[in-house]
Amino acid sequence: MNAIAAPSKGAATRELILEQAYQLARHDGLEGLSIGTLALGVGMSKSGVFAHFGSREDLQLALLDFVSTRFVEFIKLPALKKPRGLPRLRAMIENWSEWGHIHQSGCVLLSAAVEYDGRQDSTLREHVRQQQSAWRDEIKRAVGLAVQVGDLRTDTDPSLLAFEIYALMLGLHHDAGLFGWEEANRHTSAALDRLFASYQP
Amino acid sequence: MNAIAAPSKGAATRELILEQAYQLARHDGLEGLSIGTLALGVGMSKSGVFAHFGSREDLQLALLDFVSTRFVEFIKLPALKKPRGLPRLRAMIENWSEWGHIHQSGCVLLSAAVEYDGRQDSTLREHVRQQQSAWRDEIKRAVGLAVQVGDLRTDTDPSLLAFEIYALMLGLHHDAGLFGWEEANRHTSAALDRLFASYQP
Repeated sequence: MNAIAAPSKGAATRELILEQAYQLARHDGLEGLSIGTLALGVGMSKSGVFAHFGSREDLQLALLDFVSTRFVEFIKLPALKKPRGLPRLRAMIENWSEWGHIHQSGCVLLSAAVEYDGRQDSTLREHVRQQQSAWRDEIKRAVGLAVQVGDLRTDTDPSLLAFEIYALMLGLHHDAGLFGWEEANRHTSAALDRLFASYQP
Repeated sequence: MNAIAAPSKGAATRELILEQAYQLARHDGLEGLSIGTLALGVGMSKSGVFAHFGSREDLQLALLDFVSTRFVEFIKLPALKKPRGLPRLRAMIENWSEWGHIHQSGCVLLSAAVEYDGRQDSTLREHVRQQQSAWRDEIKRAVGLAVQVGDLRTDTDPSLLAFEIYALMLGLHHDAGLFGWEEANRHTSAALDRLFASYQP
């Protein structure tokens, strides 16, 4: 067998466990993740699951990376086809909204931020903080490019605009979950248009 | 004994249980609330707690009202001393930020929105939705007054501006929990100034 073409059975099982864990965590969050339910879902024993992930925390950390990779691929990769500057930044936000629409009833990454933001000195909190920080840097970079190509005012503070965009995405997710997607999306689109207009050169 | 001056022993015990439940829920959320831990904390048996609240759900609903009353009193009442219009609206937002600062490591109301937004047909979800909707109406009303007295442009959409304000408060809470209060507060203040400037008549 070709070791490059076929992933090892171990890696495939690991992927299967993470996929199932993802589905569970979308509903119950990372803290609500039950290894018993997870094992049942993949037709394994609990110790079978632990053979792939040393501990519950290791599994939660791996799951965060698993979802984060999906998130970035979903939002960033298609946007790279757009011209750099505002078109690419707005494409990223559009894909991000779409991710919010798909995960309206629960986004693992956002729930994790709420679950762990108050827990000092926890490995999970630090992991969530690093992920969120890396994502914010991606937005800042896209904002910076838009300033560079002249689509946004030269005195734009990328870190402030990235915060403003992030806040609107939080608002979209919050309102969609409680008041329905349509109104939430209408408000968010209008707010984004106003926001970008205020940074127009 | 004067029945008006002294609350019944039952009401006082109920208040004591809710206060303790509030402290627990600030850390673990409403779903993480354990009646066993709660009973231990107030020095009662589990059935003693259930004598005051018929079920776990009844306790969760009562707790939501308990926190919501505190929230509105903290934010709205002091702001009513300010002149109607932008000063009152901005005072509300300042108090709201202060609430966020105090509850940086976990706000029961906000966590509840995340916990229940995806659960269809749940009594708790409907309760959270109604609370959030009532609070959004308060902001819209304050915005409407600011338009009336000429502090904001006449074409201001109160429901859009209320959404934009709410989103920034979500951003503040999110960033404060992960990246620290100072930077989060600096970004939020700058964003609020930009937002209100864009609605200036």
